[in-house]
Amino acid sequence: MHDPAMHDPVLRDPVLHDTVELIRAKRDGWPLTEAQIRWLIDAYLRGEVADEQMSALLMAIYFRGLDQAELRAWTAAMVDSGEHLDLSAAGRPTVDKHSTGGVGDKVSLILAPLVASCGAAVPQLSGRGLGHTGGTLDKLESIPGWRAALPPAEMLAVLRETGCVICAAGPGLAPADRRLYALRDVTGTVESIPLIASSIMSKKIAEGTAALVLDVKVGSGAFMRDVADARLLAQTMVTLGEEHGVRTSALLTSMDTPLGRCVGNALEVEEAVATLAGDGPPDLVEVVLALAAEMLRLAGIDADPVAALADGRALATYRAMIAAQGGDPDAPLPHAAAGRLVPAPESGWLGRLDARAVGVAAWRLGAGRARKEDPVSAVAGVRCLVKPGERVSRGQPVLELLADDEARFERALEALAGGIEIVPDRPLAAGSLVIERPICDNG
Amino acid sequence: MHDPAMHDPVLRDPVLHDTVELIRAKRDGWPLTEAQIRWLIDAYLRGEVADEQMSALLMAIYFRGLDQAELRAWTAAMVDSGEHLDLSAAGRPTVDKHSTGGVGDKVSLILAPLVASCGAAVPQLSGRGLGHTGGTLDKLESIPGWRAALPPAEMLAVLRETGCVICAAGPGLAPADRRLYALRDVTGTVESIPLIASSIMSKKIAEGTAALVLDVKVGSGAFMRDVADARLLAQTMVTLGEEHGVRTSALLTSMDTPLGRCVGNALEVEEAVATLAGDGPPDLVEVVLALAAEMLRLAGIDADPVAALADGRALATYRAMIAAQGGDPDAPLPHAAAGRLVPAPESGWLGRLDARAVGVAAWRLGAGRARKEDPVSAVAGVRCLVKPGERVSRGQPVLELLADDEARFERALEALAGGIEIVPDRPLAAGSLVIERPICDNG
Repeated sequence: MHDPAMHDPVLRDPVLHDTVELIRAKRDGWPLTEAQIRWLIDAYLRGEVADEQMSALLMAIYFRGLDQAELRAWTAAMVDSGEHLDLSAAGRPTVDKHSTGGVGDKVSLILAPLVASCGAAVPQLSGRGLGHTGGTLDKLESIPGWRAALPPAEMLAVLRETGCVICAAGPGLAPADRRLYALRDVTGTVESIPLIASSIMSKKIAEGTAALVLDVKVGSGAFMRDVADARLLAQTMVTLGEEHGVRTSALLTSMDTPLGRCVGNALEVEEAVATLAGDGPPDLVEVVLALAAEMLRLAGIDADPVAALADGRALATYRAMIAAQGGDPDAPLPHAAAGRLVPAPESGWLGRLDARAVGVAAWRLGAGRARKEDPVSAVAGVRCLVKPGERVSRGQPVLELLADDEARFERALEALAGGIEIVPDRPLAAGSLVIERPICDNG
Repeated sequence: MHDPAMHDPVLRDPVLHDTVELIRAKRDGWPLTEAQIRWLIDAYLRGEVADEQMSALLMAIYFRGLDQAELRAWTAAMVDSGEHLDLSAAGRPTVDKHSTGGVGDKVSLILAPLVASCGAAVPQLSGRGLGHTGGTLDKLESIPGWRAALPPAEMLAVLRETGCVICAAGPGLAPADRRLYALRDVTGTVESIPLIASSIMSKKIAEGTAALVLDVKVGSGAFMRDVADARLLAQTMVTLGEEHGVRTSALLTSMDTPLGRCVGNALEVEEAVATLAGDGPPDLVEVVLALAAEMLRLAGIDADPVAALADGRALATYRAMIAAQGGDPDAPLPHAAAGRLVPAPESGWLGRLDARAVGVAAWRLGAGRARKEDPVSAVAGVRCLVKPGERVSRGQPVLELLADDEARFERALEALAGGIEIVPDRPLAAGSLVIERPICDNG
């Protein structure tokens, strides 16, 4: 039945032929050529390959994978579907960072100004959150006046002026990825390492950054729960970046418990500002400094990010960036109308505070969205008043839930069931959050 | 990455939830419940499940299969998507036959009147051809005046009057299969045994026949080239039929060389009539009689089809059926304007005449269609002047190609390259065309 000799093109009309034969070839495990992949992506954008054909191909790719040559071609076709930004006007070495997403992951808000304050240009084109991990743009939009949408010229101006910019990727950047991602989201074809890697990397390559550090998160609150999968994704992206002339490396970092103490949009901005002011939680600071060191290494800049954080340079850069994008860094952030404390059920030590449970709770409180057109609440979220390894007494609040509306609390509390574990003995001190560092230059 | 615990329905809005989660479950190898399958099929017909979601699910089914319970539910949902015919008015035991399609397969034209003339009612709802195997309706439409489209009441009237009817399945019969088949055709998801089996059986179950014999063809000219695949398809369909109360059995028959001597629409009608008149080629007669005996056995009728063929009863029934559907059984059939003989390149014995090569040649001559809306030529086709095992001299015509138009010959000749093999020694006599018989009652 799976005999490729059955793929007789004469039995098909010329228009359908290519698409159906290419789907069948991939389905049966035959690699596609660069020309075939480019034709597929371009024809999909032209409407010649229909959504139902592309989704069948994506599912075949889910099962069969893409080899390195196919993946390079697939990514290049997505990059070439739109504009290539030219960041040479930034006047400094460019270096960006991408996180695969975690709970309480406000790292970009700190890292971009920190690395910029050390002399690099950080052009961070970001996305919005979908599901239980928040989006950097959603967080910054809790700042009054701040604008995520910048035309390319304005984006470049902010980058040149402040050394960093965090804004939405414009519609001209890898439009094929935009179309394909929306299709994958509704067809059960998101969870494919080559498709994830090409989606992330096509945007970063088109963005024009010279260097890129990937923060691949692993654990209950991450997209990747398994170190082996995370390592494969990291290596795949590093190779793709290098093949397209972007100096790329990756760190695997742990995402079993929320990063820092705050989960939610305005809450995370507050915590990011505190960290920039030298008062950050140690787990967050550890991840920020590890990524900053790696970004500066790739950018060829010999500077000390610890000093830049300590002496206020990073905070000043952050304030300049926010202001350049219309935000008022001194404006008070909105606060939640309703709060609910979650007490410890017994005394002991907090053994586990599950990242996914807290992420889903924050999502149900209103911090995240289920569909990309949904609004998010700026104020909703979770404060982690106790972190794993800390002592807790029965009845002491472990979490504070925050929302616009009391009605949100019940389902958020359900999400937390089983997510908080109190143990009688002091747990072993947690190790470094950086599981592996750095995976560079083709793994 | 493939942890089913990741399928957290709370992260999805209620409308998308079901579809995407069900696609992911199937993709990850979890069986779907009967209720989930019924919801998917019904929601697809309502437009709530989009084409691109269904095609992704079909591709996941291609890779993961359907277990027996899923397949039963999938088939039942397709049957229940439309009307169920009631054939009790036929007044005789009903028995139908289905062929998976072959080159020169005009068996239905002979078998339906033959079995009817023995006392059964044969309600044959047929399809048109697509690709290199012809369709029964296309063949009969070469008879002046004959109508394939009969409203259900007229179909029943013809069946009661003549004992048989061969007509198009109406749009009310298993409409879900119609939609799904069209989708599979453009998304590379045709070649899946459970999807093939459910497509065939849903129409036969909805048709209301009490019994069904399946002619599963195996060989170069068949959809199934491999005996193991054909056996699995046959067993799958037999089980489905029995589960839905249709007495079902199957024969595997060989399709390595064209059946009979004629391939093409009017050409095959001519050969069918000759066979009904007692002058049929032995290979065709063998397959017809094997299927007739099996149909009569399932219908519980003790009659001798050899006698019915010899004494003219079968031919009389055929003529009555054609006339009842508006056709003139005495009208001359159209003949081709252009012919081309294909000579033997050397002397010897015809060792092989490849069914697929001849089928593709006939298709290119105009006998078949590439798209379901294409017209077919009544006169185009191939006459096999020599069959495998027969002696041939250099230059003697082996095939006669027939078409409306000389311009068709060149590409038809290309299709025949390698399809005709002359051997120096007399080949072993071919064995029976019936490879296995009958696979009954749950295999």
